[in-house]
Amino acid sequence: MGEFYIGSSYYPEWWPEEQWEKDFAKMAELGFNVVRMGEFAWSWYEPREGEYNFEPMIRAVNLAGKYGIKTIMGTTTAVCPPWLYKKYPEVKGGNERGDYDFGGRKGNCLSSEIFLEYARKITEEQARALGGNPNIIGWQLDNEPGFPFVCYDDRCEKGFREWLRAKYGTIDALNRAWFTMMWSNVYNDFDEIMLPVNAAEGGWFPGLRLDYRRYFSFIFNRLLRMETEILRKYIGDRFIFTNYPGVNWSVSCQDAMEFLDYAGWDNYVPTPYNDYYRYQFHSCMEHDLARRLSKGKGKFVVAEQTAVASANQLPGVVRAQTWIDVAQGAFATVFFEWRSPLGGPEQGYGTIVELNGEFAETWPELARLARELKEHYHKIDGAQTVSEIATVYSYENSWATPGWVVDGAYDQDFFNIHGGLKNAFRQNLDAIFPTDDFSKYRVVAAPNLKFLSEDTFNRLEKFVADGGILIINAECGTRDEFNNLLPMIRPGLFAKMAGAEVVSTISVADMAKQQAGSGDEIAVLFANGEKARPAGMMCKLRLTTAEPIAVYTCGKLKDMPAVTINRYGKGHVVMFCSTADSQEYFEAIGHILRDRFDIRPLLNVPDGVIVSSRVKDGKEYILAVNAKESAVTFTPDIPLYDELNGREITGEVTIEGYDVLFARKL
Amino acid sequence: MGEFYIGSSYYPEWWPEEQWEKDFAKMAELGFNVVRMGEFAWSWYEPREGEYNFEPMIRAVNLAGKYGIKTIMGTTTAVCPPWLYKKYPEVKGGNERGDYDFGGRKGNCLSSEIFLEYARKITEEQARALGGNPNIIGWQLDNEPGFPFVCYDDRCEKGFREWLRAKYGTIDALNRAWFTMMWSNVYNDFDEIMLPVNAAEGGWFPGLRLDYRRYFSFIFNRLLRMETEILRKYIGDRFIFTNYPGVNWSVSCQDAMEFLDYAGWDNYVPTPYNDYYRYQFHSCMEHDLARRLSKGKGKFVVAEQTAVASANQLPGVVRAQTWIDVAQGAFATVFFEWRSPLGGPEQGYGTIVELNGEFAETWPELARLARELKEHYHKIDGAQTVSEIATVYSYENSWATPGWVVDGAYDQDFFNIHGGLKNAFRQNLDAIFPTDDFSKYRVVAAPNLKFLSEDTFNRLEKFVADGGILIINAECGTRDEFNNLLPMIRPGLFAKMAGAEVVSTISVADMAKQQAGSGDEIAVLFANGEKARPAGMMCKLRLTTAEPIAVYTCGKLKDMPAVTINRYGKGHVVMFCSTADSQEYFEAIGHILRDRFDIRPLLNVPDGVIVSSRVKDGKEYILAVNAKESAVTFTPDIPLYDELNGREITGEVTIEGYDVLFARKL
Amino acid sequence: MGEFYIGSSYYPEWWPEEQWEKDFAKMAELGFNVVRMGEFAWSWYEPREGEYNFEPMIRAVNLAGKYGIKTIMGTTTAVCPPWLYKKYPEVKGGNERGDYDFGGRKGNCLSSEIFLEYARKITEEQARALGGNPNIIGWQLDNEPGFPFVCYDDRCEKGFREWLRAKYGTIDALNRAWFTMMWSNVYNDFDEIMLPVNAAEGGWFPGLRLDYRRYFSFIFNRLLRMETEILRKYIGDRFIFTNYPGVNWSVSCQDAMEFLDYAGWDNYVPTPYNDYYRYQFHSCMEHDLARRLSKGKGKFVVAEQTAVASANQLPGVVRAQTWIDVAQGAFATVFFEWRSPLGGPEQGYGTIVELNGEFAETWPELARLARELKEHYHKIDGAQTVSEIATVYSYENSWATPGWVVDGAYDQDFFNIHGGLKNAFRQNLDAIFPTDDFSKYRVVAAPNLKFLSEDTFNRLEKFVADGGILIINAECGTRDEFNNLLPMIRPGLFAKMAGAEVVSTISVADMAKQQAGSGDEIAVLFANGEKARPAGMMCKLRLTTAEPIAVYTCGKLKDMPAVTINRYGKGHVVMFCSTADSQEYFEAIGHILRDRFDIRPLLNVPDGVIVSSRVKDGKEYILAVNAKESAVTFTPDIPLYDELNGREITGEVTIEGYDVLFARKL
Repeated sequence: MGEFYIGSSYYPEWWPEEQWEKDFAKMAELGFNVVRMGEFAWSWYEPREGEYNFEPMIRAVNLAGKYGIKTIMGTTTAVCPPWLYKKYPEVKGGNERGDYDFGGRKGNCLSSEIFLEYARKITEEQARALGGNPNIIGWQLDNEPGFPFVCYDDRCEKGFREWLRAKYGTIDALNRAWFTMMWSNVYNDFDEIMLPVNAAEGGWFPGLRLDYRRYFSFIFNRLLRMETEILRKYIGDRFIFTNYPGVNWSVSCQDAMEFLDYAGWDNYVPTPYNDYYRYQFHSCMEHDLARRLSKGKGKFVVAEQTAVASANQLPGVVRAQTWIDVAQGAFATVFFEWRSPLGGPEQGYGTIVELNGEFAETWPELARLARELKEHYHKIDGAQTVSEIATVYSYENSWATPGWVVDGAYDQDFFNIHGGLKNAFRQNLDAIFPTDDFSKYRVVAAPNLKFLSEDTFNRLEKFVADGGILIINAECGTRDEFNNLLPMIRPGLFAKMAGAEVVSTISVADMAKQQAGSGDEIAVLFANGEKARPAGMMCKLRLTTAEPIAVYTCGKLKDMPAVTINRYGKGHVVMFCSTADSQEYFEAIGHILRDRFDIRPLLNVPDGVIVSSRVKDGKEYILAVNAKESAVTFTPDIPLYDELNGREITGEVTIEGYDVLFARKL
Repeated sequence: MGEFYIGSSYYPEWWPEEQWEKDFAKMAELGFNVVRMGEFAWSWYEPREGEYNFEPMIRAVNLAGKYGIKTIMGTTTAVCPPWLYKKYPEVKGGNERGDYDFGGRKGNCLSSEIFLEYARKITEEQARALGGNPNIIGWQLDNEPGFPFVCYDDRCEKGFREWLRAKYGTIDALNRAWFTMMWSNVYNDFDEIMLPVNAAEGGWFPGLRLDYRRYFSFIFNRLLRMETEILRKYIGDRFIFTNYPGVNWSVSCQDAMEFLDYAGWDNYVPTPYNDYYRYQFHSCMEHDLARRLSKGKGKFVVAEQTAVASANQLPGVVRAQTWIDVAQGAFATVFFEWRSPLGGPEQGYGTIVELNGEFAETWPELARLARELKEHYHKIDGAQTVSEIATVYSYENSWATPGWVVDGAYDQDFFNIHGGLKNAFRQNLDAIFPTDDFSKYRVVAAPNLKFLSEDTFNRLEKFVADGGILIINAECGTRDEFNNLLPMIRPGLFAKMAGAEVVSTISVADMAKQQAGSGDEIAVLFANGEKARPAGMMCKLRLTTAEPIAVYTCGKLKDMPAVTINRYGKGHVVMFCSTADSQEYFEAIGHILRDRFDIRPLLNVPDGVIVSSRVKDGKEYILAVNAKESAVTFTPDIPLYDELNGREITGEVTIEGYDVLFARKL
Repeated sequence: MGEFYIGSSYYPEWWPEEQWEKDFAKMAELGFNVVRMGEFAWSWYEPREGEYNFEPMIRAVNLAGKYGIKTIMGTTTAVCPPWLYKKYPEVKGGNERGDYDFGGRKGNCLSSEIFLEYARKITEEQARALGGNPNIIGWQLDNEPGFPFVCYDDRCEKGFREWLRAKYGTIDALNRAWFTMMWSNVYNDFDEIMLPVNAAEGGWFPGLRLDYRRYFSFIFNRLLRMETEILRKYIGDRFIFTNYPGVNWSVSCQDAMEFLDYAGWDNYVPTPYNDYYRYQFHSCMEHDLARRLSKGKGKFVVAEQTAVASANQLPGVVRAQTWIDVAQGAFATVFFEWRSPLGGPEQGYGTIVELNGEFAETWPELARLARELKEHYHKIDGAQTVSEIATVYSYENSWATPGWVVDGAYDQDFFNIHGGLKNAFRQNLDAIFPTDDFSKYRVVAAPNLKFLSEDTFNRLEKFVADGGILIINAECGTRDEFNNLLPMIRPGLFAKMAGAEVVSTISVADMAKQQAGSGDEIAVLFANGEKARPAGMMCKLRLTTAEPIAVYTCGKLKDMPAVTINRYGKGHVVMFCSTADSQEYFEAIGHILRDRFDIRPLLNVPDGVIVSSRVKDGKEYILAVNAKESAVTFTPDIPLYDELNGREITGEVTIEGYDVLFARKL
């Protein structure tokens, strides 16, 4: 590699063959060098059982190649042709409403031996036909693994029981793990266990729900692993990845990285508008986690991203968002999509080419992007992101949160804390896993790490004792791996390190109701004067050795500690209570830590500019994207060479709205 | 005819026979001359299979006749007796929750051969017993065809496949029409197609959903046609109609008019309160469409309408609403209902007679209505409504809008534009179909006519070229008959005529979120100073030859065109973007057109007065209903003779709140 | 007895046996003398079919006894062990989504012969093993009978049909009762009747729904009666009760009292915060109804109650709430719960012992409570509550209200009127049934008594004629026992007594919409200047002999009567229209009646103090609980002896926030 891959999705199966060449030529005109094809084309490859025909796709791939456009090829198991469903209805699963009818996409039963066999066959045929094609550079597996996160059918029930049997060995072990002595849910046999669908009252046991989620992740990764193994036989050193809907919101991407080469994700984070820029930190979080998933390679794929702007945005938002991809380590951004389907459910997505075949409004910035990435990206390809701050993400802790929904409590907090610290520190951030090494960081944030291994706990303890700053909340260290409570009060295992304990709580909603009319603001007031709203539960704390860095502003909690800091060994533990409802909450914490511990920014950029750096061959590149529409001006506090404009920077710098500064540190 | 039919629904099967005479006598006392009976009485006619007994109904009909009250008789297929369901559960269909249980009403499976056979038999028996009865004047089929708009059972699945086979001939044709190459939904056989019930992800193909809706309309009209054919053998020249829940919100009434004599609908438009009168334009729209459906007869039935007022209304609202019926062409208004059932699900509807048997509060205005219609209606029976303005309604375009719900986007816009233009112009309006002749109008509005035939397009083009004013929105002319997009940008086929194109869009919701705090009003400002809110998407336009007549007031769209007008040939095309959320939006457009093109009112009535006219025997009658509770005074700009009060009008006229002016133009 | 039972729930089956003794010792340390165990332990007793083992529970009971703690033992039929479900899936029922899967709790099919047989066996075994245990004082049946209020399976359908056959005898009688001549729902056979699950349109017949609710109550009480009969063989004179989720919100507790000894309920009424105290009147209502259910014994059980306070409450709220229990007649308050389960669905309830085994924050007030109740409760054990005011509760009228939900219209009104009158009068209140004697009261409130027997009506009429004050609303006396309307206008049977009739209505929601922007307040203005909001429908009244005591403030109803009073015989009838949405509404009525009829308080306590009295051995004890957090001071208008502090009261008394005055009248 070395080159940045910029391009779009394209579905040759939708269009008459004579259209393809026009489209590839137009892509080349824009400067595109990659196209993503094939992930929903099973019916095209195998219109009737066993009648394989990859010739059209081969022609499409080669035609793209003729225009200098490489292909990212998708396996096709996120769909299922009608003939297969008709012959074996068990190839689709079901949800709480019952078995799926044929229609739409996804919902294939990943516990069905029959489905798996047909998936194996089509993937093998596809790999055999296309695997060695020189115009193909990499493979994407399936599509957006995860949603709808359930498969409630008989095959999955059976599979789940077998998986549980393998995991627990004895039913007694499972009963202990799930605490089934409650309400006489004590099983005598694995065959008594049912999928969590229609309970009369009281809901499902958290242990069962968490294990079901683990099972669902297991079967999805089993499919992806099978496809990987098939592909490896045919594709040589081409890379394999998949396009997670979010690297947090899916099955376990961490498990999948045992066999994948890169992580990829679909960046549907809203592009900035006016001077509102904070959404972009959501994509930074996903990028940082994707970079971690790619196991030291320092780069990843953005497999889908919008290429259009709304009527209320200024030119530049697509380019700015793409430079943010690049700044955190993307080596490919594939826009979705080239042209709208004329029928089917997915009409109306923003496209690069209008329905009439002409370029849409954003083409000048796409062309500029392609041009400047072609010229400059090689400088940072294979570069590393060096960070002294990390946030810790845990799939299983996320799954353990009721709801399992996007932006649910766990992930919302993770979004907010990651973005809040990045914005406060103006620094690189890593997103890492509980099993990772903490010792190289100055600051580690591990919100809602309800359960963690003894080893992780010990390493976090050592991290703090040796001088690190650990940020937790009161939920951390309060549960075991089965999602059962530990016999401790919050923050459980961390109580001594935090120097504070939870005495009692009240939900923010109840507090708001009870203080309505009192004039109280339902907020947390930080020591530096900033204010933000808590979310979930507010906690009354008993401080043993900690000191407050923020207090509540309402009711009986007025002036009582809401966020604390505690000296422990050579380090510090910050605890916030209990969660927050905005990124700004964590920016305030970041500002306090920045000032107290002198955490220096990569560059003294003004508000709204997202700054990251990449290091390669001993050179450090600073990428600063102005995510606001208004220009900013500042005098850099470090000497810089402006790579895009090819000149040393002296005195003031202005970054126009949605513009980027790509500079080398001198 | 010649007489106006005023009366109510009545269910003799609910009451002991000795009660009937008291009720009919009381109806006669009010001046009623019609009663609507029998549409839910299957169990009464056939309490056990094959045991028919129409004697009680015959006695009821004749007893009514004795009091001068004619009967509108209903066929009874909107219900199903328990014995039939018990014997053949397939006679009821199902919804997304599964098969229906017995209870309530409707839900009969119109694809079930068994149901159709029993429906045929009971209708034939009923027609044989009652068809020639001299006290019966007309027949209503079934009840409120349409809701719940789905029948998800095996018979309908099978029927749908057969219907598709007949429509498309080959599965390849269907695949092309539905764009099934997307997501590998390519069918090899019609038997692979399933009803759109429980999809895993991504939703159902628009082509499938639209065709399912067409199929549902087809089977409902097949039933109605069968009943019509049976009735015709027995009823002589008595009329046949059915009571649509709305003439827009149902199956295709246009198709049904191939065999029906009149359209009918259930006018549950809220009666006016205080000075709020705009709801009444909704009933004007329904009336105008019903009049069109009655194929040149110029009249129709209001089959259900409330006869009561709430505790917050003044006397007169029921009479005013009925005169609005009459003004657009109703020849019958049947109130719902005479007396409340003592049990069952439909308790608590407003009734003419209280539970204690005494008249409810509105009886004086009902009596007055009956009296004045008896005296004056004959002057306009069989009259024509002459209009130079028309709105175009398309069932299939309505169905193609996701949701298919009452007041969904398509129908909401149609309501608003029809009402807005009528109120702005103070003129008669026609509601017509895409296949109708446009050449006789000055103004035609065709909002959301996403797909249309080549012939319709050509005739609209000619209409404008010849001098007409066409009002469209950006969605018009953008799709084909399968609900697939045309490869054109909005407004598609109309781009040249409109002189403008859509460059980009933003939803009103997103705009409101993005401009919150900016002080911007989310509105459209018209050239005449009026303001109104857009709905759905806001569009950035590129004007080729058009000029703006309204601009946006917010964000990046501020001062940019929102509504345009374009000279084309001898005529003009007005395009609004993209939809609106109120009638007032279209009143503003109407005012601008009125002033620019000198569109004259029927009569210079003040705000709140709904004016229409009817022409018969060379005489033109003006009907002006004050739909406000406050009186209005004005000096007519044309010479009039007040028919109700029997005097020529000179100088000022006052129309009291909720009162009516029924005048002849001199 | 004589002793007050204070303690908590405890689940020995959750914990290792060595933990038990620590827990019982800690309970004893707090002064607890009762523990509630065993109601979900079926799997513990019978881990595999027929393998009974009660030894562990016997050990737990005896160990508790060793610490002076008596046991309330639960039967275990609210759960079902997995082996039983696996063997006979019919032991669980279903809901509108289909059959229940195994998981959670409840949902057992009470129409299943198999379930009933297994329930009989386990109860018999449990009673045999534990019935004579001297450490057990009483038995609780099942758990929170009622929710989910439906069982939609084949056994229940069959059982329902049989129950209907037994009730109605002939299908014609049922048809008349349900008014099935509407919509041809006329049944020929009981086997044609289906459970009200999935109707196509129009909904279910109210008669069917009400009878289904009666059937559900019947089968639940049949189970409880069976368990009672088994227990009686083994337990001697120990008492039997069950813990209703609310004594109003359940199956018919009135029917159950044919065989139970006491009523019990789970008091999850929110504890007071700041100076908001009105929720506590909800618990007074439940208490008063529970006391009535206990058939003259004058006491009842609070089987679950929170023992914790939130972070926004001051100490004392748990103690205050418990004294409110005692003041209305509780002889036991069992807190829920001792310690949180470590797993399972019910984590996070407030507990007495923290997860770390230490007492939670409220232990000082619990210890104080235990101490003072031990010292003083015997004075009022077996005492009577003497009241001259009563509210009338009817299960069947509650069930007849669509929705059958907690706090639905019927129960909401009952809550509000009971609490409003208690707060206005500062008096004892009884909650009674329609079959009870009214003659001993001065004031009887019977809101929403839509149907009532002739006998009840006659006795209410006599009550008024003899001088009583009856409070009704316009819905009273308007229906028959099948929930069918009477042929009368509202208030039906009561029209003459009320001296007023309903002419027309408007919903509060419609009124608010119609008067938006008018400046009108949507309220009712009382003669004494108080104001409150109506709910549901507002009624225009025609007064025959009544006079208004409140008028509306809005729209056409402005200044028109909203609440009336009418002299009838020697008494008065107050009618409010139609319902209210707050307790304050009824406080206003209470204040007017108090002033007009000189209804004297038990004690002249200030606002926020809940006062009740108990009479025993000729002594009258006053219990006044300050449910606000701020202290109140007043000079009693009667001579009192302060029992808690052991001194006669002279001059001013101060009751601190959340404190209690337990005094004897001198």
